[in-house]
Amino acid sequence: MEISPLQKERLKYEPKLPGMLRHGVSEISVQEGEATQSVADQEKIKALFPNTYGKKEITFVKGANTSSAKKQVVGVILSGGQAPGGHNVISGLYDALKAASRDNVLIGFKGGPSGLVNDEYVEFDDAFIDAYRNTGGFDIIGSGRTKIETEEQFKAAEATAKKHGLTAVVIIGGDDSNTNAAVLAEYFAAHKSGVQVIGCPKTIDGDLKNDDIECSFGFDTATKTYSELIGNIERDANSAKKYWHFIKVMGRSASHVALECALETQPNICLIGEEVAAKKMSLSQIADYIADSVATRAEKGMNFGVAIIPEGIVEFVPEFGTLIAEINELLAGEKAKAFNELPSWNEKYEFIRKGLTGKSFKVFEILPEGIQKQLFLERDPHGNVQVSLIESEKLFAELVANKLEERRKAGTYHGSFKTQHHFFGYEGRCAFPSNFDADYCYSLGYNAFMLIQYGYTGYLSKISNLSKPADQWVAGGMPITKMMNMERRNGEDKPVIRKALVELDGKPFRYFEAHRAEWASETCYTYPGAIQYYGPSDVCDLTTKTLALEKGE
Amino acid sequence: MEISPLQKERLKYEPKLPGMLRHGVSEISVQEGEATQSVADQEKIKALFPNTYGKKEITFVKGANTSSAKKQVVGVILSGGQAPGGHNVISGLYDALKAASRDNVLIGFKGGPSGLVNDEYVEFDDAFIDAYRNTGGFDIIGSGRTKIETEEQFKAAEATAKKHGLTAVVIIGGDDSNTNAAVLAEYFAAHKSGVQVIGCPKTIDGDLKNDDIECSFGFDTATKTYSELIGNIERDANSAKKYWHFIKVMGRSASHVALECALETQPNICLIGEEVAAKKMSLSQIADYIADSVATRAEKGMNFGVAIIPEGIVEFVPEFGTLIAEINELLAGEKAKAFNELPSWNEKYEFIRKGLTGKSFKVFEILPEGIQKQLFLERDPHGNVQVSLIESEKLFAELVANKLEERRKAGTYHGSFKTQHHFFGYEGRCAFPSNFDADYCYSLGYNAFMLIQYGYTGYLSKISNLSKPADQWVAGGMPITKMMNMERRNGEDKPVIRKALVELDGKPFRYFEAHRAEWASETCYTYPGAIQYYGPSDVCDLTTKTLALEKGE
Repeated sequence: MEISPLQKERLKYEPKLPGMLRHGVSEISVQEGEATQSVADQEKIKALFPNTYGKKEITFVKGANTSSAKKQVVGVILSGGQAPGGHNVISGLYDALKAASRDNVLIGFKGGPSGLVNDEYVEFDDAFIDAYRNTGGFDIIGSGRTKIETEEQFKAAEATAKKHGLTAVVIIGGDDSNTNAAVLAEYFAAHKSGVQVIGCPKTIDGDLKNDDIECSFGFDTATKTYSELIGNIERDANSAKKYWHFIKVMGRSASHVALECALETQPNICLIGEEVAAKKMSLSQIADYIADSVATRAEKGMNFGVAIIPEGIVEFVPEFGTLIAEINELLAGEKAKAFNELPSWNEKYEFIRKGLTGKSFKVFEILPEGIQKQLFLERDPHGNVQVSLIESEKLFAELVANKLEERRKAGTYHGSFKTQHHFFGYEGRCAFPSNFDADYCYSLGYNAFMLIQYGYTGYLSKISNLSKPADQWVAGGMPITKMMNMERRNGEDKPVIRKALVELDGKPFRYFEAHRAEWASETCYTYPGAIQYYGPSDVCDLTTKTLALEKGE
Repeated sequence: MEISPLQKERLKYEPKLPGMLRHGVSEISVQEGEATQSVADQEKIKALFPNTYGKKEITFVKGANTSSAKKQVVGVILSGGQAPGGHNVISGLYDALKAASRDNVLIGFKGGPSGLVNDEYVEFDDAFIDAYRNTGGFDIIGSGRTKIETEEQFKAAEATAKKHGLTAVVIIGGDDSNTNAAVLAEYFAAHKSGVQVIGCPKTIDGDLKNDDIECSFGFDTATKTYSELIGNIERDANSAKKYWHFIKVMGRSASHVALECALETQPNICLIGEEVAAKKMSLSQIADYIADSVATRAEKGMNFGVAIIPEGIVEFVPEFGTLIAEINELLAGEKAKAFNELPSWNEKYEFIRKGLTGKSFKVFEILPEGIQKQLFLERDPHGNVQVSLIESEKLFAELVANKLEERRKAGTYHGSFKTQHHFFGYEGRCAFPSNFDADYCYSLGYNAFMLIQYGYTGYLSKISNLSKPADQWVAGGMPITKMMNMERRNGEDKPVIRKALVELDGKPFRYFEAHRAEWASETCYTYPGAIQYYGPSDVCDLTTKTLALEKGE
């Protein structure tokens, strides 16, 4: 196989471990802290996790390893969307496991959790692992989105574990996957199957974080990749001085990615879903907010700009949510048939006008025709509107164009407004992990093995103090149940890890809020450039502005 | 102004000059070679450039500087689309000019050639230049697309030159801009205005190259940026194993960018416009070619892939060109009115069916409806189809989907075909220049000053032997007229620099051709990763595969 010069060099990179894990497996001792409680709904969570609830926080320290020596056969699973660094979690896990004993075995289950259920696997050896060190992607074993939920699936997973003599499973995934890890840990504990389960916090979305998990892996690399591109586009905009670029970035449930990119690149506009929801902003208000920046800049002769739009933004707009619900209702079941049979769009439009409440029709009315049609004509197999297909970067560009036309007629705007659209998502999920993610992930994997060796289950591998150099990082573990609460999902109360939204009183948002008026009217772009893996430490080892601000740096 | 950590470090980078330019301005001597002839139409070109035609090739060598000492007042212009390294051409020019004498003056004309016509300028000093060293973008003075063509414009340019006491103008641009540089040089020479004109070869498209110019600047950085993204997407495709990604890359008149990206990333498919034209391929044939790869891979269980589509591809498809010409004819002048008044798309469609030749209607018929409508409904102010707005990445994805549906019905295809679309252009034009482009551009600018000091005009700054380390580069100059021939432009025969298309018997295409069957059916992706400015030399100093192959390396 041909590999690129960078890949060749990155295979040689030696990830940095936290200082306390640097003395070798035999010199890692454990310190137990306080027993834990879930963040909310303690009684309910406790009742659902009788065997794994209330365990103690763990920190590793330098000292003699007191764990009982036993042969470890560990399975590892990549779950959900790709994030840079997944391969390093596996190589860290492998290295620790083999350092403890060459007889230990690491098995990779293929294609996500279904690999455990269906017993599709590979056994790793040195050559296998060595080909994937410090590389992006999840192609080492693939990933998948299956959840292990049914009794049948649990039994199948147990049978696979038994067949291989598994002592532990490591699940690398986001909030849902780690919730699933906790459920599996409880199942194995309840069935005394002798299989521990450890989770590792992954997601480029950055929404798996809390008092214990400072950030999920992949967020650093992905946002650096998007920020590279946004910065390049800003510089292009500032050179050509003729386009407004509307740039959508991944992140449906939270706007961490958009916010971090804004902190890195200082665009004219960045929408934050959580703020839109909190202020109950309407589409029209948002469009006016952007149009204000366009108009102010136009007055100064700057008919160009950059706006960052989080992928999930429309789902945060309350009136849009209502509109979607009404459309789904309007076309539910048999009603879709009558609609579909109407011969022309004009007749369909009339049907819609009559079917929606006046308030929702007003929202519908201001949408560009392309999106109006999309809402009604491209529905999923259950007949629901496919909100994720809405090209919100184009939606807002068009809404703003309409606002500007109104202003032009009123004589309050005289500029030129030409737009370009971009969407960055797939570009960042499989980049070579930044040094930070390479180190962090390797440490998460190495640390996961230490948790296994010391017999813990239902824990998330935890590395903290991440805004400091790696030698000062702190390694340990936290019961997943501590991060859980009860939430309504598909009509049922479920125990889940609480998703982290952008906090409007948190320091990252506050910093953004304090500067955005200036960014909107002036040109304050910063150009981060491509991720650097070599060179000066302030260029190649710094993590996100979000984390630095959260840590008060 | 806040600047990023990378920018802070890049400002300190010292670009590498060709060995022969490293001894200081006073130690650069000139060697004249043979008198030159234009590549074609010698008599016509000679007649059009009586004062600047037939000059000798120039090479610089180590030796005493024998140029006559005079105060130089040089104007510099950025022309056309952005390309990484423009700022370095200016800083190289500035450094040489100031090294020759602190009294020399460098003036930047703002917003492209119109800055010279309208006398919009800035005078550079050390602090000004220092803030832009090794950065991307053209924001130092902006760029523009005005050509200096009319007698009035020439006179205005001459007046500006006289006002500032200009001794020379450096024009940084692509083939058209450098053609314009030659015309301006001839004008100044004919009018004995004492102003020399030197060009520098810029364009990310890579289509300004010939026997003398090995490559235009910016091509290296832009293709590295696109290749980073394509590689990341390939890795994502190979991890998730569920999407075919259709990726359009910039480059309307030639497919060098697509080809270089393909050589860097080894995708399953890469279309090359020049091949499509040479083989007179139809849309249907192209779609079948892609569908073959999709089907072959599906049979092996690989329902994913990556296809690179050059931006200008449809303009290379002969039948599509005919269709566009017929549409333009069908709606010319008054005829558009009758068409526009037809109330429904069905009636318009009927009008189209009757109006096109049978052959062109067949082409029209297979287009997705969205593109059919675009061709007729979104025309430019002259009523012409806006071919550049056609989203060819979506066009081919849809055509392939249709082909696959036919095959599914025929029982010859059983896979799944889900697509994602991307367009990379603006992301690469303003990236921080790679070390190669930083060095090359700085050398071009430095060298341009040497040509000025030795009194040459109508020359292109020429740095060659570029596939070797910089100390082996060769600096000199070549009369622009040598690269010219006569071409039909807007109904007139014009002297122009011949545009370089992808040569189907050239080594880069041949290499691609020899490997693409394997790339189409197997997964041979390579992942170049982000441009590196630091680190091992094979990672941070290599230029393009195109150049390496052309040089037989």
